[in-house]
Amino acid sequence: MAVLIREATAADWPAIWPFLRAIVEAGETYTYPRDLEESVARDMWMLPAPSRTVVAVDEAGTVLGSAKMNPNHMGGSSHIASASFMVDPQYGGRGVGRALGEHVLAWARAEGYRAMQFNAVVETNTVAVALWKSLGFQIMTTLPEGFQHPIKGYVGLHIMYRQL
Amino acid sequence: MAVLIREATAADWPAIWPFLRAIVEAGETYTYPRDLEESVARDMWMLPAPSRTVVAVDEAGTVLGSAKMNPNHMGGSSHIASASFMVDPQYGGRGVGRALGEHVLAWARAEGYRAMQFNAVVETNTVAVALWKSLGFQIMTTLPEGFQHPIKGYVGLHIMYRQL
Repeated sequence: MAVLIREATAADWPAIWPFLRAIVEAGETYTYPRDLEESVARDMWMLPAPSRTVVAVDEAGTVLGSAKMNPNHMGGSSHIASASFMVDPQYGGRGVGRALGEHVLAWARAEGYRAMQFNAVVETNTVAVALWKSLGFQIMTTLPEGFQHPIKGYVGLHIMYRQL
Repeated sequence: MAVLIREATAADWPAIWPFLRAIVEAGETYTYPRDLEESVARDMWMLPAPSRTVVAVDEAGTVLGSAKMNPNHMGGSSHIASASFMVDPQYGGRGVGRALGEHVLAWARAEGYRAMQFNAVVETNTVAVALWKSLGFQIMTTLPEGFQHPIKGYVGLHIMYRQL
């Protein structure tokens, strides 16, 4: 399955929202309120320039996942980018997350960022942790009991980082 | 010099803005844009409930410093608080930062937070780093070249944390 990455437009939101909502409602991987309202979610995910949101699509145009990318800090740390990723669970395990991750790193380099920092990677989200490690990120620290998992209770919250 | 901590009101802003602006313009300790506009600064600093902003004052009512406190994350990590501190440089070295820090930790405990995380402590801000350590915070990691200091160039950016 080929995975193509393109700019997200407002017309993509109805395709993104169902799987984004399911992932957020599950509450196992993202530090968003589990009852996130659609309008709030859209504003948080569909970012205006100079931030950016993309979708991963297959040859038929089906949306498989999405990523947003933005500055992580302001001022003297505005050279550090951040990014967030949502992959439709029915298309998991097919390289969609990796394609989005590689795209986001290339974007950050092209925009002149010097590093990318993920502020909150739940340690039990082992698929994501392994993917980011394979893309050159390091676990800089793990905040003890930093995340309340709905099934596993308090677990660690990784901060991951890579210089570009 | 006695240092009293009380709620900040809109009437305190004109006393806070001059030293906050000077600290931000210097660009050595905070990840804010150095040319921060007053209206943006006020919205960032004077936080509505459930976040909170306080001022430190002396017996005559002179504002010596200010702190704001707020959730650091949402959802499954909403039990982690954050806080920011500004002390008027002309009143430095008199325990104002410590009084604000102790107040903020007591607030976070009373509000039911389980930890406090500082996202961006510039490693060359050694007075602040020593103060937070003395209040029980640990340097969890230092993002290499995470902050561009106007004089010292790229320096590390600490993430500090303490459980409550």
